[in-house]
Amino acid sequence: MPPSPARLIKFGPFTVTSQVFHTTPHTFALVNLKPLLPGHILVCPLTQHKFLTDLSPPELSDLFLTVTRVQRTLKRLYGAPAFNIAVQDGAESGQSVPHVHVHVIPRKAGDGGEGDKVHEWLEGEEGDVGGHLRERDGGAGAGSQRGKGEWAKDEDRKPRSMEEMEAEAGWLRGEMEKDAGGEGRL
Amino acid sequence: MPPSPARLIKFGPFTVTSQVFHTTPHTFALVNLKPLLPGHILVCPLTQHKFLTDLSPPELSDLFLTVTRVQRTLKRLYGAPAFNIAVQDGAESGQSVPHVHVHVIPRKAGDGGEGDKVHEWLEGEEGDVGGHLRERDGGAGAGSQRGKGEWAKDEDRKPRSMEEMEAEAGWLRGEMEKDAGGEGRL
Repeated sequence: MPPSPARLIKFGPFTVTSQVFHTTPHTFALVNLKPLLPGHILVCPLTQHKFLTDLSPPELSDLFLTVTRVQRTLKRLYGAPAFNIAVQDGAESGQSVPHVHVHVIPRKAGDGGEGDKVHEWLEGEEGDVGGHLRERDGGAGAGSQRGKGEWAKDEDRKPRSMEEMEAEAGWLRGEMEKDAGGEGRL
Repeated sequence: MPPSPARLIKFGPFTVTSQVFHTTPHTFALVNLKPLLPGHILVCPLTQHKFLTDLSPPELSDLFLTVTRVQRTLKRLYGAPAFNIAVQDGAESGQSVPHVHVHVIPRKAGDGGEGDKVHEWLEGEEGDVGGHLRERDGGAGAGSQRGKGEWAKDEDRKPRSMEEMEAEAGWLRGEMEKDAGGEGRL
């Protein structure tokens, strides 16, 4: 098993190759710089489409089949009986990177995300994946370009190190492969 | 064009046939009793699956292809450049009817849903489709079975009448048919 995919993978303008833990012919899944809850990952088309309606039927089908494959593995690893699945499809709905990304967020009772929390985080600065990646890459444009959410716990959390993310991606890559034999169940 | 689909369609325990404006071999789309924003609709598998991972690949593909078909028509009708697409996949993530439903919410600048609002509504009582339908059907179990959201404007709004929903469903059914010639573009 290689430590990371050989192919260079871009999420919008950002190179995220070493954060990627699963690829298919049309789709990749990556770990987050600042997950809202443990196991919060993103699933994207390999081609940088801005809107869901820009995807071809094979790309769209593969995207959501990949979401469900990832859900199976995350359910097992995190003991999560539920998930929030969310797409901010365009800037006016909070999309911060102009590249389709499906948020997959494991949920369980007592996880602190009850009621309005997860989606408040998603809409606020906590969920601003673009701001986080710009911050990581430093330089001009770093920091959020969106308004601050009411639940701005964001400043209390540091972006995870590349080593930490690569370790998580490697772990998830192995666990996804263990579950690959189960794809016939799908 | 018949005024409503001939087939009886159930959303969880609720009969919603006359609210349905589009069907495919595996999927139906229905108007909401209390839309969070204009054009807020739901897309569901015809078979009552609880979780996304319960859908077969053809059902899953058809579900999200239908989401994008509905998005095209809603974009044209509501002038919406963006959408929130959300699935509460299990009770612990806020699912109030144990039947997969994809929320499709048109968004545009100045629609009042900026920042955290849409998802706060979705998570709070405003978005409790189960509570709304139980309320509509009256009797035991009416009213929300979930906690009250912070943005509980819900009591200020009355459920829409069946006549109003049927009129919207009929309108959307006709508009979807106008766009059907464009499916080859997908």
